[in-house]
Formats: sequence, C-alpha cells, structure tokens
Amino acid sequence: MDSINLDRLNKYVTDSKTTFEDFLGNLIEIPTVSMDPAHKKDMLKGANLAASFLTKIGAQTEIVETPGHPLILGYLETDHNAPTITLYHHLDVQPAVPSEWENPPFQFMIKKNNYYLGRGATDDKGPAITALLAAKYAMEENIPLNIKFIWEMEEEIGSPNFKAAIKSKKQKLDTDSILVSDTIWASRGKPAIPHGLRGLMTATLTLTTGTQDTHSGLTGGAARNPIGELCQLINRCYDPISGKININGFYDKVRNPSPEELKEYENANLTVSQFKKTHGFKTLRSKDASQLIQAIWCKPTFEVHGIVGGYMGEGIKTIVPSTAQAKISTRLVPNQNPKEIFQLLKNFVKRENPEVEVTLGATLNPYLAEFSGPYAKAAREALHKGFGLKPFFIREGGSIGSVVSMQNIWAVPIVLLGFSLPEHGYHAPNEYFDWFQAAGGIKSLVHYFHLVSRLQE
Amino acid sequence: MDSINLDRLNKYVTDSKTTFEDFLGNLIEIPTVSMDPAHKKDMLKGANLAASFLTKIGAQTEIVETPGHPLILGYLETDHNAPTITLYHHLDVQPAVPSEWENPPFQFMIKKNNYYLGRGATDDKGPAITALLAAKYAMEENIPLNIKFIWEMEEEIGSPNFKAAIKSKKQKLDTDSILVSDTIWASRGKPAIPHGLRGLMTATLTLTTGTQDTHSGLTGGAARNPIGELCQLINRCYDPISGKININGFYDKVRNPSPEELKEYENANLTVSQFKKTHGFKTLRSKDASQLIQAIWCKPTFEVHGIVGGYMGEGIKTIVPSTAQAKISTRLVPNQNPKEIFQLLKNFVKRENPEVEVTLGATLNPYLAEFSGPYAKAAREALHKGFGLKPFFIREGGSIGSVVSMQNIWAVPIVLLGFSLPEHGYHAPNEYFDWFQAAGGIKSLVHYFHLVSRLQE
Repeated sequence: MDSINLDRLNKYVTDSKTTFEDFLGNLIEIPTVSMDPAHKKDMLKGANLAASFLTKIGAQTEIVETPGHPLILGYLETDHNAPTITLYHHLDVQPAVPSEWENPPFQFMIKKNNYYLGRGATDDKGPAITALLAAKYAMEENIPLNIKFIWEMEEEIGSPNFKAAIKSKKQKLDTDSILVSDTIWASRGKPAIPHGLRGLMTATLTLTTGTQDTHSGLTGGAARNPIGELCQLINRCYDPISGKININGFYDKVRNPSPEELKEYENANLTVSQFKKTHGFKTLRSKDASQLIQAIWCKPTFEVHGIVGGYMGEGIKTIVPSTAQAKISTRLVPNQNPKEIFQLLKNFVKRENPEVEVTLGATLNPYLAEFSGPYAKAAREALHKGFGLKPFFIREGGSIGSVVSMQNIWAVPIVLLGFSLPEHGYHAPNEYFDWFQAAGGIKSLVHYFHLVSRLQE
Repeated sequence: MDSINLDRLNKYVTDSKTTFEDFLGNLIEIPTVSMDPAHKKDMLKGANLAASFLTKIGAQTEIVETPGHPLILGYLETDHNAPTITLYHHLDVQPAVPSEWENPPFQFMIKKNNYYLGRGATDDKGPAITALLAAKYAMEENIPLNIKFIWEMEEEIGSPNFKAAIKSKKQKLDTDSILVSDTIWASRGKPAIPHGLRGLMTATLTLTTGTQDTHSGLTGGAARNPIGELCQLINRCYDPISGKININGFYDKVRNPSPEELKEYENANLTVSQFKKTHGFKTLRSKDASQLIQAIWCKPTFEVHGIVGGYMGEGIKTIVPSTAQAKISTRLVPNQNPKEIFQLLKNFVKRENPEVEVTLGATLNPYLAEFSGPYAKAAREALHKGFGLKPFFIREGGSIGSVVSMQNIWAVPIVLLGFSLPEHGYHAPNEYFDWFQAAGGIKSLVHYFHLVSRLQE
C-alpha cells in the first residue's frame, strides 16, 4: 500500500464520531479508580467492557489476571511477515471528589457537541479509544501491520504488577515497536512528541518523639516538636525558593539536554503565561520561558506533598505533636537512578537528623527515547499530516512506569504520541477530552501505522 | 477565732467523703463538654446541678447567661465587715473519645475506694467540690470570711465570655482576694503553689500559590511549593532542636526568674524521668532538670501544631500543593505582651516571605503573682498544715485566661492553690482524681480561709 486515501480517511473519522462517543461514554461511567479498594469490582467491569471493544473491531482478546487489577491484551494479526506495533494505554483513573466538579465526575457529558467531560476522559480513556478507532481503520484498509494492544489498569498507582504481567506474555506480545499514548502537548495547535520522561522516587520521612500529643502549656519548651524538626530537615534538603536540592551527590549523574534538543523544546510554545493559566498559578519560581521548560522537563525536583501529624482540624489546638510524617518525592532526569537517589537521601537524613525514619515509596527510572531516527521521523510526519501542523519534540515532566518496563523487556523503539492538552486537566477536577484532538489523533495514527508498516520494506 | 480545731476538722473531712463522692459523681455524669455544640443542653443541666450544690451549703446562687455557656455564682455572706475571698473553678470539660478510655468517660467510677474516674474528675470538678466542702466547714465554724464562688463553663474553650460576664457583676462580686484552683503539682508529695502562668499567642501562617493542587510531573520544578516555603519560614522563626526563637525582638521583654525563685522551682521535684514518663516522651530537648523547669515555666516557646495542605491521606500522591497553612503558637512569659509579639511575628514574616498571610488567633497575657507577701505566706502555711508536707512555689507552663481577666477587673491578690497531680491526666484518657488530694485539699483550704480571715485584723 503506497499512500493513504485522505478523502476516505476523513469520511471514516467523521463517521466514527458516534462510535467514539459511545465507547468513551460507557468507559467513563465505570469508575475505574485503581487506588481505591472500594472500586475493585469496577476494575473488572471496566476490563470486560474494554475487552468487548477490542472484540468488536475484530481483535483476539485476553484478560490477564495479576495480584492487583487485570491487564487487557488485544491482537489484530494481518500478515505474519508484516511488522508488529504495540499500542499501550491505561484505563484506570485518578480518584475524583464530586464536590470539586461541576458535574458528577463519573457521568459522561458532551458539551457543545465536541467536549467530553468525565474522570479519565483525557487520561487515558479518550486517547485509548482514539487509537482503537485508528487501528480499526488500518485493518479495514489492509495496512500490512500487526497491531497489539496493552491496556493497563494500574498506571495511576505506579504499575506495581505491570512488568511481571507483560513478562509472562513476552513471546505473545513480541513486537517491533511500541507506541504509548498518554502524554500532553505543550499547547493546542503545537503537536508535541515527547522523547524523554522524568523518573520518580517517593519516600516518607517520619519522626516520633513521644507516645501521644501533649498540652503545649504543660510540655512546650522541653518537648521536641517533630513537625518543627521535619520542617528543618526539609529546608536543609532543598531551597523552596530556587528549587535547588542540597542532598550531596544529587546532581552528579544529570545529563543536560543538547543545544539542538533545547532549541526544539523552546519551539513547542510553552509560555509562562499559558502555563500559569493552565495550572492556576499566581507566580512561578521564574518568569523566564526557557527556565520554565528546563525546570519541568530537564531538571530534577524535590517536592513535599504533605505533612501529617499534630492537629489538622479547624482552628488551632495548642498541642505538641508526638509524631509527624512528611510525604516527599523527587522527579528525576536521565541519567539519575532512583534507588541511588534514595540512598543519597537516606545518607543525608542520617547525618542531619538520625532519628528520622526514611521509607522508600515508589521508584521509576527516567527515560530518553530517540530524538532523530526512523520512528522519530515517522512520528513527526504522521502528526504533521494528521493535524496539518508542524510538530515539535519535547519532553514530559512526569513518569510513565510502563515505558521503562517495556523497554527493559523488548528493547525496541518506543514512541510517545499523545493527544491530550494542558487545559484538559490531567488528574484535575472537570477533566475533559475533545473531538478535535480525537479526530486529529485518529488521522495521525493511521498515517503513523502506514509509515511504520513501510519501515521494514 | 484564733485557731482551727484539728480533731473536729479531721472528723469533718472523714465524714464528708460520701458527700464528696455523691456530688462529684453526679457532676461527672453530666458531659459538660463546652467545645461540642451537641452538649449545649448538658451545659445547662450541669449549671443547674452545680447551683443546687451551692444552695445546699447555704449559699445564695445565681446563674448568669452569656452568649455562650452560663456562669454559676454563689455567695456565702457571714459578716459585712469580714474580708471576702472569691473561689474560681470551672465545670466544663475536654471532649473524651470513649475508645481511648478503659471505662466510659462520663460514667463515674470509684476504684480501690479512693480513686475517682471520669472526664473532668481532676480538671476541674474534683477541686471544685473540694473547695465547696471547705467553704461549708468554714461557715459551720463561723470563720469570719465572706466566700464567693465563680464557676465557669467555658474555660476549655478559652473563656470567650468570661470577662464580660464577671464585669457585668463586678460590684456584687467585689472581693479582697481570689483563689483559683485549677493547677497541678510537680509530683505527689510535693505540694506546689504556682505563682506564674505563661501567656499565649496563636496564629496561622497561610500561603497560597495557585488555585488548585497540580501534578508534580507536569509542574514540579517551575511551581512554587507552599508547604516547602512554610517549612523554610518556620525554620527561620525558630530552631526546633534548641527551641531558640529568631524573631527579632522576641526576647526583649522577658523577665528572667530570680535566683530565689529558681531555687524554689528546683525543689518542687520535677524530674526529667518522671516528666518523660508522665507525658510519654522518648527524649527531650535537654537532659537537665533545671533546664527542663526553665523551659516549661520561665521561657517562651514557638510551636508548630500542624501543617494543613497538599495530600494528607494514605500513601503518597505526587501533587504540588496550591495552598498550605501552618498552625503555630508561642507561649509567653512575664513581661511579654501577646499583641506585641504578634506584631513582631508579622514584621518577621513580612521580611522573610511577604506573601505569607499571618492571622492572629487567641491572645492571653502571662501572669505573675506574689512570690512572698501575706497571701503567698498564707498559702504556704495552709498547704503545709493541710498535707503535712512542705510546699514549694512553682510556675505553670500553661495559661488560665480567667486569671488575667479577674486581675484586670479587681486588681486584688490571686493565689493559685490546686490539688491535681501529673498522673491524674489533665485532658487525657482515663482522667481521675483521688481522695488523698481531696481530703488534704479541704484541710488546706480551711486553714487558708482561716489565715486569710485574719489578714485584715
């Protein structure tokens, strides 16, 4: 097959809108909140519904049990000699607090015909259905490509069982390349291909100085204050104003971006004002766009997410807390290693306040994919054709644990082609997706499938 | 009247045990939890019961309505020309979580004949009944003293209506001296007379950098972290290891205790090991008893009670918080002024992190009563006679708002004669009082009434 018939593709996309909305709506209305044990049954219900979609487009399907939530696999085989591509998405979602939403988070709503509201709409159910419909068309058009699907249901909890599950299906899932669609453009109208992801190391810092909270009138002055001591420790770990981390050795392995990479990132049109607006910030650490880009894509972070302990209710209760815990994390960049970083943190804390207990949470390696090369080139061309707009290579500040796991197992090119926008609200209240991104996404993916099918000719 | 007949007093005390238990038991079984609106009716019920006790011993009684909970007043008039003493107690109690208690907190229990269990037993219902029975005896013995009672029901919520209520009864309550019985000895067998109380200033530090929590993968590095910034600010306010406060001017007005005072405090037998055991501490800021005494009685503190903001649930959610609030307080010593200290804090924060909003909570002035002088001498002698043990002057690390209010209104000597022990558990689960302290308390107060009645002869 030499080229894609654009008229036929356009008609297919237009005709698919109803199916897209039908699939997405049904999927959103099952609250597949992986971190909440109360939704255990919904996870199974969601997996069964997703499998039925795969079956509907002619794929052979399989639900893989894990110690946690299941994995849905699909296989569309065309030609044994054709190349194979694997599409990764996840169908679990973040929790949603109904009071923070304008509409119930697990009730699907279409606004102004083209906007799809509900938890998971953009992260990652919308992109999953986008790719499903692109694959369906590739089959109908006989693009010589075998397509495999991996739909995870534990992405939002750090993919604890993903690696073992796909390893157990290694042979059946063997592939020539992988496409992951769970990423966000820098702004609408600027298609973006992230080629790098930050890693992550989460930890808790716990200090207990007594068996019970005490009355600060009776004990204050003599009693140690674990919240105060954790504040001091955190303040020694990093400077919250500049973001600079003071843990010894922390920056040693950081790979700085090349001038070419930086230039491309800066073209992605991430502006300070748009970034502030998107995320609701009053001010940022810097007013400079280039520094913003480096801060969120190329540099590691230290973050404190919450401090638990003492009195956290209304008003003030003048107790001296007996125990406190800080929830912290560091985002890591190539070539930092999360386990090494944890060890550096532990050494640092041991010196600064030896009674503080440091407990490792999750680790995810940072990831850097090809910046040039055949798959990178195909992705650039496909997005350009699908949206009629020049794409840019960028990085993502977040982590996708599955990417690192899949690379460890198959060592094949992994391309990150996402269609979400900053305003869609990953993890935020009133999350949505939209038809413009879905339609452009289907077209881009069809082009990408076509280009990839010819890479091994 | 020249002296107290000790045999008759001893017999009276022994005979009063049943009445004591009857009064205290009935009072404990009404859950007068002032901070819980659900107990609004119990507050009235408690006030009526208390008034009936006063009536029973022959006092004229009065229940004063306030915008909050009522105040109970009692008047035992003997001789228009005799001196007048006013006895202050409070009958409201802290909340109690039944699961933390061995027995239901609002069910009165007598253990081993002499231990009285229930919320409020030692703080401050037991001491109130102790004083009531001493006053009854003083009347029966015709000690030439007019005795007035002020029983508050809002002490545990910071006495919001106390000052206005007593001011409205200023004339009727006019007095020559005041006795407050709501304090704790340093240890059993070491009768203690606190002559100083610390003051208090509570405040919140709030920093908002955005409209919503964001995903640290998307924004981390560029986004400011309000918890991190508050940690830095708190760490600049004070050193949690030594407790030293770095707010400019903070220590300027501190009146250090005299060598005589310090020597007396050290004799009160507050040991580091007992203090640790009483409050459940693993370690303290210092291992030295003299430093402990100064830290809790004579020095001001900076305390952080809790930091609210970000993610405070189970596990770790890697968000960047958009807002955070630190609940802080300082305990103050003579001659610090809480409103001046608040201004110093505000100035300091304005310089260190001008976006942090500083909001004043409660203020209470520190208090220093006479260390020598006729009332101090009478208290010393009365306790010695009542318990057969040499008493010591100490201080209290906490605040009693009513003391400061009463001093403002009447400017008469206020003596703090309490009978509670550290192990009785102020504000703690399984709170109790005991007959040994009650019996010694009745005797001590009878002696004190006698001594005070002769001061103006």
